[in-house]
Amino acid sequence: MITILNLKGLRINERNHLEIGGCDCVDLVQQYGTPLYVMDEDVIRNNCRTYKKALDKYYSGDGMVLYASKAFCTLAICRIAAQEGLGLDVVSGGELYTAKMARFPMDRVYFHGNNKTPEELKMAVELGVRRIVVDNAEELEVLDFIASECGRITEISFRIKPGIDTHTHEYIKTGKVDSKFGISMENGEAFDAVKAALAMKNVRLVGFHCHIGSQIFDIEPFKLAARVMLDFISEIKTRFGFEAQELNLGGGFGVRYVEGDESVDYDEFIKEVAAVVEDICKDRQISLPFLVLEPGRSIVAPAGITLYTVGNVREIKDVRKYVSIDGGMTDNPRYALYRAKYEILLANRSCDEPCEKVTVAGKCCESGDIIAKDVMLPRVKRGDILAVLTTGAYNYSMSSNYNRLPRPAVVLVKDGKSRIIVKRESYDDIIRNDVLPEDL
Amino acid sequence: MITILNLKGLRINERNHLEIGGCDCVDLVQQYGTPLYVMDEDVIRNNCRTYKKALDKYYSGDGMVLYASKAFCTLAICRIAAQEGLGLDVVSGGELYTAKMARFPMDRVYFHGNNKTPEELKMAVELGVRRIVVDNAEELEVLDFIASECGRITEISFRIKPGIDTHTHEYIKTGKVDSKFGISMENGEAFDAVKAALAMKNVRLVGFHCHIGSQIFDIEPFKLAARVMLDFISEIKTRFGFEAQELNLGGGFGVRYVEGDESVDYDEFIKEVAAVVEDICKDRQISLPFLVLEPGRSIVAPAGITLYTVGNVREIKDVRKYVSIDGGMTDNPRYALYRAKYEILLANRSCDEPCEKVTVAGKCCESGDIIAKDVMLPRVKRGDILAVLTTGAYNYSMSSNYNRLPRPAVVLVKDGKSRIIVKRESYDDIIRNDVLPEDL
Repeated sequence: MITILNLKGLRINERNHLEIGGCDCVDLVQQYGTPLYVMDEDVIRNNCRTYKKALDKYYSGDGMVLYASKAFCTLAICRIAAQEGLGLDVVSGGELYTAKMARFPMDRVYFHGNNKTPEELKMAVELGVRRIVVDNAEELEVLDFIASECGRITEISFRIKPGIDTHTHEYIKTGKVDSKFGISMENGEAFDAVKAALAMKNVRLVGFHCHIGSQIFDIEPFKLAARVMLDFISEIKTRFGFEAQELNLGGGFGVRYVEGDESVDYDEFIKEVAAVVEDICKDRQISLPFLVLEPGRSIVAPAGITLYTVGNVREIKDVRKYVSIDGGMTDNPRYALYRAKYEILLANRSCDEPCEKVTVAGKCCESGDIIAKDVMLPRVKRGDILAVLTTGAYNYSMSSNYNRLPRPAVVLVKDGKSRIIVKRESYDDIIRNDVLPEDL
Repeated sequence: MITILNLKGLRINERNHLEIGGCDCVDLVQQYGTPLYVMDEDVIRNNCRTYKKALDKYYSGDGMVLYASKAFCTLAICRIAAQEGLGLDVVSGGELYTAKMARFPMDRVYFHGNNKTPEELKMAVELGVRRIVVDNAEELEVLDFIASECGRITEISFRIKPGIDTHTHEYIKTGKVDSKFGISMENGEAFDAVKAALAMKNVRLVGFHCHIGSQIFDIEPFKLAARVMLDFISEIKTRFGFEAQELNLGGGFGVRYVEGDESVDYDEFIKEVAAVVEDICKDRQISLPFLVLEPGRSIVAPAGITLYTVGNVREIKDVRKYVSIDGGMTDNPRYALYRAKYEILLANRSCDEPCEKVTVAGKCCESGDIIAKDVMLPRVKRGDILAVLTTGAYNYSMSSNYNRLPRPAVVLVKDGKSRIIVKRESYDDIIRNDVLPEDL
């Protein structure tokens, strides 16, 4: 049997159909068409709660879990995150605008990015976000100027490169970390930036942020990052008499996409990180910082599936069997970009025994338009409904109109009910910004 | 000096600024902002004419050059292609809809795709496109049914896999070509499909199509493909008494992106292909087919540049210098997808001597968001205008709203004048399909 169905919110019903959030996938397809993104509201809310409860339970200080909205950013998900008491991590004016239009409380919004434009910084200052996470010394100066122009004092933290190798769990002391993000610790850059910020009138330095990577399944690098950051905070205190009030350890918590992947116990993760932070703070005699964590993928990825209708099925004898679907790299570019793997099953014959190896191809005019290579499926035929699992993160958010394909709708399901949270694009949507000059 | 400036339509003016189509790039940026796609109308038109003239001049039979619109599909480019007497290759309902709204003559539209949906096929039949290029036997049946329902007889061709390896120039006789596109020749599949089509009432078989790849710099595989396809046509004639009236050799003509790339003489390409077709037809005693070619990239890529404003510039000593721009993988995902290379220069100080190696990074919260690695530029500073060259194909068409970044405007330039052909997206555009259910 298909063990991935341990995924919460999914089950196979008596009609041999896949069900998500109590909704029969075949019914969903009849109602909304394909391709269709489906998100399970309970799974999203439970994932939010897991993180929030763990932080509340294990950490003696204050803190906040932010939903990293780049994973999947729409009005509805912002609303859900707000209701669950989470903060929001936004990385652009567009995400910030979405938060605003969802009436997300601005005092829980953190603004990230390696190259925020002046317009974006102004927008963030004017909206009064809780924190602007300053990426570098140049940005610090631009922000101080903008804040002064707006007559505001803006609270900031700095993105620091802690130089952790998430594979070897080593702190790379030479610190030559090749990244476009953040301020280096070891070459004095970070100390200079702190010094500069402390002397500024329109920014108020509150703390420090780091982000060590994504799809991390091992707690050790997180613990190491906490240690490195707290050492840094301790040294800043010694050097400048400034004690940081906030430590933001970012996100990157691993998600299980396919059976071979490990699964992460997020509650245990938070527990161990909290313990490390408390230990070191005690040891270094620094106050417990406001602890911030930024899960994104791990909140929404397992909540989402994508449904497709199968079109052409072709067997190239002794080579490969292609199953073509009515979507592809336009709605899920993760295979094309990262060779990402997914579990796939037939939503309309979910219990049928997988018996053949196929490659699921999209409908784009591009040979690289693949969703999954060499996956086992029952004998698939035209008209079958394919469900690709764990597509709640970085699918809709990365979607395009390549080949002028309209982007699918997103449906939120809960207790057997479904609601549209993103409307399907029409052909008119696609050409709406096209202009045909009169003299052409 | 920067030799890539041999690119037609580009020059450096007396203000030391890059000029395209007679427009100063710094002025364009002041007027339209960044990121900005700029397309040179004369270059597009000249490229269209090069192909059309060559086909008219060198080929004794009739024929048509189609613009493969997936490279860059908007109302304006469809109009230009129509005015230049080209046909149009569309691969989806969205591209077909764009053609329709641009009032592109349907009797010059070819509809391609490995997995056209029934809705798309119906749309193509009803609009009366000149040709539906049937990808496989299953599609043939679906189309025959749809055409019958519409009461139309639809003219088709078949996409055939000629089994050409474009690198070795070998015809892979075992034919085990691993592709989601087209019908195999060597296992009898193609003959079966022809037989089936000839027996159908609602489709009329006109000819055959093949497409051997993309970014091909060598004429030999094209000549080999022509030979293989004509041999096939000849055998079909012998077997079924059916003489194909059309041979469509597809596209894939190479484009020079960086100095190291070869350049292709498209006129010479067409000349040699035409000669081969005529020779073989004479030899095999078959009538000269209506010859179709489908350039896309080579028509628009060299006509386009993208302009960005430089934000953060950071040097990581002994490692790398990052220049961050206000766009990235959202408007140009080709580095992220294919490690594609581009020539880059400063549009506001174009003659300044390149003196340092930098990596141009986008503003997305993703370390893979790179536009070009290790390119030589003059000393770049915040506020400089960066021009990425040869971005006219597969940039706008593949763009996304990842991180909720709005897609840039596209401006068409000619004789020192500029006109918007795609409006810049607003934040409201981005959330326009978001729905916030009332009970959420």
